[in-house]
Amino acid sequence: MNAEQTRLVTTIRDRFGPKSVVTDSADIAPWLTDWRGKFQGISGAMLTPGSTEEVAAIVSLASELRIPLVPQGGNTSMCGGATPPGDGSALLISLRRMNRIRSVSAGDRQAIAEAGVILSDLHDRVAEEGCRFPMTLGAKGSATIGGLIATNAGGTQVLRFGTMRSLVAGIEAVMPDGSVHNGLAALKKDNRGYNLDQLLVGAEGTLGIVTAATLRLFPAVAARTTVWCGVSSPEQALDLLRFLEERVAGIEGFEIVPHDTLALVLRHIPNTRSPLSGEHAWHVLIEATTSGDGDLLRAAIEEGLGAAHEAGHLADAAIAANEAQAEAFWHLRDSIAEAERAHGASIAHDISVRVADMPRFIEEAGAEVERRFPGTKVDAFGHLGDGNVHFHVRALDGVWAPERAKEVSRLVYDLVGEAGGSVSAEHGIGQLKIGEFERLTEPARVAAVRAIKHALDPLGIMNPGKLVR
Amino acid sequence: MNAEQTRLVTTIRDRFGPKSVVTDSADIAPWLTDWRGKFQGISGAMLTPGSTEEVAAIVSLASELRIPLVPQGGNTSMCGGATPPGDGSALLISLRRMNRIRSVSAGDRQAIAEAGVILSDLHDRVAEEGCRFPMTLGAKGSATIGGLIATNAGGTQVLRFGTMRSLVAGIEAVMPDGSVHNGLAALKKDNRGYNLDQLLVGAEGTLGIVTAATLRLFPAVAARTTVWCGVSSPEQALDLLRFLEERVAGIEGFEIVPHDTLALVLRHIPNTRSPLSGEHAWHVLIEATTSGDGDLLRAAIEEGLGAAHEAGHLADAAIAANEAQAEAFWHLRDSIAEAERAHGASIAHDISVRVADMPRFIEEAGAEVERRFPGTKVDAFGHLGDGNVHFHVRALDGVWAPERAKEVSRLVYDLVGEAGGSVSAEHGIGQLKIGEFERLTEPARVAAVRAIKHALDPLGIMNPGKLVR
Repeated sequence: MNAEQTRLVTTIRDRFGPKSVVTDSADIAPWLTDWRGKFQGISGAMLTPGSTEEVAAIVSLASELRIPLVPQGGNTSMCGGATPPGDGSALLISLRRMNRIRSVSAGDRQAIAEAGVILSDLHDRVAEEGCRFPMTLGAKGSATIGGLIATNAGGTQVLRFGTMRSLVAGIEAVMPDGSVHNGLAALKKDNRGYNLDQLLVGAEGTLGIVTAATLRLFPAVAARTTVWCGVSSPEQALDLLRFLEERVAGIEGFEIVPHDTLALVLRHIPNTRSPLSGEHAWHVLIEATTSGDGDLLRAAIEEGLGAAHEAGHLADAAIAANEAQAEAFWHLRDSIAEAERAHGASIAHDISVRVADMPRFIEEAGAEVERRFPGTKVDAFGHLGDGNVHFHVRALDGVWAPERAKEVSRLVYDLVGEAGGSVSAEHGIGQLKIGEFERLTEPARVAAVRAIKHALDPLGIMNPGKLVR
Repeated sequence: MNAEQTRLVTTIRDRFGPKSVVTDSADIAPWLTDWRGKFQGISGAMLTPGSTEEVAAIVSLASELRIPLVPQGGNTSMCGGATPPGDGSALLISLRRMNRIRSVSAGDRQAIAEAGVILSDLHDRVAEEGCRFPMTLGAKGSATIGGLIATNAGGTQVLRFGTMRSLVAGIEAVMPDGSVHNGLAALKKDNRGYNLDQLLVGAEGTLGIVTAATLRLFPAVAARTTVWCGVSSPEQALDLLRFLEERVAGIEGFEIVPHDTLALVLRHIPNTRSPLSGEHAWHVLIEATTSGDGDLLRAAIEEGLGAAHEAGHLADAAIAANEAQAEAFWHLRDSIAEAERAHGASIAHDISVRVADMPRFIEEAGAEVERRFPGTKVDAFGHLGDGNVHFHVRALDGVWAPERAKEVSRLVYDLVGEAGGSVSAEHGIGQLKIGEFERLTEPARVAAVRAIKHALDPLGIMNPGKLVR
């Protein structure tokens, strides 16, 4: 640590006690590498505040001493968004000690949770009040509320509930000068200028440090119905979704899986079998939930699927007979990444285009990549109804030369750009995608992002090197 | 006009033809005074672009020549938000010629409308496709999409559909340097930094000029059920709302009216009668709609009201027997402002607090105002379920001394501030409320608004004197 960093650490420890700072390098080490192992940072100490007051004191002092801070929650960023720079110039600030759920109100359908609350802990706590916080994703056992807000996280329930942005009613944050923004009152109507809460969602910690949030709750799920369908094309899958949405309330999962990707899962993951007997070019996993009568939901789905079959929107469908079968259906979807890994490296792209354009994009971009790079295979799977798929490219021989991988990614992003889509649908920009963000986003938007960053954080101390260079 | 203004006007007319500028002062005059007649501005010409390209050319030139621009739609701002400064330094730019509905897609549930499209025209057009754009308000025959976005308009359907912010899927805007931001692709998931679309909603034209938007559509309403209830207190009214929301899908209107306010309507508005025979301290107008079976909806409401009565959540209720009666119920609610005017001047306050706090606020703040200012009567009516009421203060003798009116308003806003609420729930800040916004909003938020304004509009040419001094 340099002299300023030492001064900050000493001052904070003197004021808030030994729990407020970690200096043992062995304790810091696990938090210096990102989840995917792509980035490695250095931080001489890890600040671990236990309250908003402590965060404000730290940021205030960091501002005075010009010390950059890198906020971190569960350290599950897919883009190196929470990894400090490699030169040791910044200090990590971990929000994990701020893990109180300040309140849960079933009547108001709101909970106030601190930034360090782990997503699955929030799920459990609100369930005790008969409520549900609908956001969920693979990393729910480690991802924190603060990180989910900073990255505007997605997950599998976006179709019905939107991304984290829609689930945040208000935010408490420490701004770059150490002042506190308290938006926890979560006014339903408040037209006093620019919406600061919404600006902080998805800002990746570059405009301030989220310390707590008021979150929207929904009635607990009483029953779910899970379906596996075979369809002939992504186009047919999207038609099926629209057809069903007119007839069934509560559809919240709609995941598309290509035939070859399912085959990969069946080959590499033990104890898996296809829910359908025939061969289908594309598969769809559908889930609907209700807080009311499960039999009514199931009846609506059966009727909807029957009508869809008659109208030519699907080839075959299997409704999970029980919870175990529903779990087995989801296990197929959730095992894709593992199956790909068993096969060899694949190159992941988290991309989106307009929902209506996604079927054509999947087919055309997939064909283009496989044509331009012989020996590759595209696995485009995931959230069709959100216009967002995980566009993974496998090498059929399981091996990628780094240069070739880069060329493939560049082509994928070029195709996304041509389609007016986004090079980051749900994972953010972090360190990983700054180049592609700048290359393929309209200049007016990139300029606005830079101007806002420099206006709110003129000293550049908030998560440096992320989103904005 | 000064030399620069003349140069801009001439250049634009030469390039885009006579339709692109209005210089006849009689044609400009109606647009120089705000809807409530509180502000009077001067503008030597009114720019009337017909396309995004024209707007971009105007802004680009205005930026070069340092000429402030005041964007205007239907000129129905309640806060002087679209009235130019009184010194003639700025030029009006009216978006009303940009009134194309570029597309309506029932499949995607989206429409793309230009800024100058009048709200009721959009309603009619999407209805042809079996769709509904749910935002509606009194000024729907003149308010434009651009203005509704710039002010994040509310209205009576917020309970179910949210404010304009929730209904905007993407925005096209000309930024202060003349560059065009095109967010019309309306990606459902797009995590490339700060959300520029959301920042432009409610920005009152101070960060750029909205030229078009992608708007969310919903299935057309097939039937509605309208109910008038008598309750004993705002607290009971909110309990009733929560009770009904658990049992009836599609509740979208929930308007509270105090006894004395209803009495004022019955006295001053011809052909009105109370829907209920008995006396009630508070009244509630409830409306639910469905795109499906109207009989099912009505049955659900009847059952819900019956259960609510048994549970002690209401004293009496009348369900409108037909459309004429439903209209008569709404006429009572919509005539409050007119009844107040017939009585004498009233001082209006558009305020919000947390939904859960609103019942207590209405009673306590109402009593405090009437106690501190003898001879006054508070009409607190409107959107209880949004935590937003129109807090009007009448003089019982119908006459207000200007100084006394100011003192009353100051007290009302102080009480809102103490309750952690907003001095502008749905009308924005404009010119009218800058002082109260700065006085009663946390410093971190005011500072952020100013910093963002100066960063994106460093020359200060975008709607000067609104929101930010």
